[in-house]
Amino acid sequence: MQQLQKKLAVDFGIDFSDVSLLETAFTHTSYANEHRLLKISHNERLEFLGDAVLQLIISRYLYQTYPQFPEGEMSKMRSTFVREESLAGFARACGFDRFLRLGKGEEKSGGRNRDTILGDLFEAFLGALLLDKGIETVEDFLYQVMIPQLEVGNFERVTDYKTALQEMLQVNGEIAIRYQVISESGPAHDKTFEVEVLVNDQALGRGRGRSKKQAEQAAAKNAVEAGN
Amino acid sequence: MQQLQKKLAVDFGIDFSDVSLLETAFTHTSYANEHRLLKISHNERLEFLGDAVLQLIISRYLYQTYPQFPEGEMSKMRSTFVREESLAGFARACGFDRFLRLGKGEEKSGGRNRDTILGDLFEAFLGALLLDKGIETVEDFLYQVMIPQLEVGNFERVTDYKTALQEMLQVNGEIAIRYQVISESGPAHDKTFEVEVLVNDQALGRGRGRSKKQAEQAAAKNAVEAGN
Repeated sequence: MQQLQKKLAVDFGIDFSDVSLLETAFTHTSYANEHRLLKISHNERLEFLGDAVLQLIISRYLYQTYPQFPEGEMSKMRSTFVREESLAGFARACGFDRFLRLGKGEEKSGGRNRDTILGDLFEAFLGALLLDKGIETVEDFLYQVMIPQLEVGNFERVTDYKTALQEMLQVNGEIAIRYQVISESGPAHDKTFEVEVLVNDQALGRGRGRSKKQAEQAAAKNAVEAGN
Repeated sequence: MQQLQKKLAVDFGIDFSDVSLLETAFTHTSYANEHRLLKISHNERLEFLGDAVLQLIISRYLYQTYPQFPEGEMSKMRSTFVREESLAGFARACGFDRFLRLGKGEEKSGGRNRDTILGDLFEAFLGALLLDKGIETVEDFLYQVMIPQLEVGNFERVTDYKTALQEMLQVNGEIAIRYQVISESGPAHDKTFEVEVLVNDQALGRGRGRSKKQAEQAAAKNAVEAGN
């Protein structure tokens, strides 16, 4: 744990005070069960707390970053961001997997690389950090390791901009949204489409893509971002 | 809104700065839809944020108040605490319903007293308060109006202490829990039972009630609280 404390200080500028809390965050139930007589605490309660602080910070981030997005769209984005595989990836990227205290059975069956276990570990760490340092530190940490990744990576892949645009506009009533191809170029096996999105016959955005569908998404994205 | 600002200051010591944010929190979609041309914002996005801050504060409260409760039990308690009817009740107790901006149709059909609408209003207010004053102020507010009520009211009614005790103990492996009646007193129509809960044949708690079931719950509660 001393090594972990040092790592947190060097990598993230976190001066973690309560070592026993850190130990709990990095202890899987399987380890606690194997050492029952020692009454070691495992990380499930901290995970409960960490999940809640993560949800809040991501919610606030989405609220501030996408002022035109309706609640339903933010909600979808949030659940994509905080899904297990995503959190497990951040745990690995932070090098947390090495410090996990795991039972022997789990270790043998590859638990140290399992998404559920690592996702829970990441949340438990956030819970511990909340108790040790407060919400601002948790927020700083997430803005270092997680939020920039959401922006460049996951986000592009997972958001359905056509739906987002529709929801954004229908906040103000029924509206007709049309997509039309304005150009097609290149040979058959390597075409580029350009699409325009029209809202009540007014052009709101343009986008390009290798398929009509891709170009429509790009046009919707363009319109959504212009609306922000 | 000026009257509401004054009320917040007098009743809760909250000096709310951003009036437009407060307005948004108190505006139902039905009102925004009726005034489309004015492009009034409604409270759905703030509700999204408020829900998240509420979950976190309740989670931290449960984590700190019930150190022996497993994650599953805290999770159940949390969802009971933050359910719609409960939040609507707090909105009414704070006198928020009077200030809600509601569409005419909703007003006619009794929307001003509807649990869904008032529960959402309460959450939206928490979201606005988070943005205006920060999480400590939201926490102070909830510790004034909501958390003491959970302690005395809802909580007693909704928690199944027998399950809580079971989950608490089984964190440390398989354990035999038995309830036995140690006394029965009073006439047939007005009996009182006293029950003892035994864990691996060791008495951990006692409780009384008008039925065996009630007395068992009381004994489990006694054991759970002793374990904290």
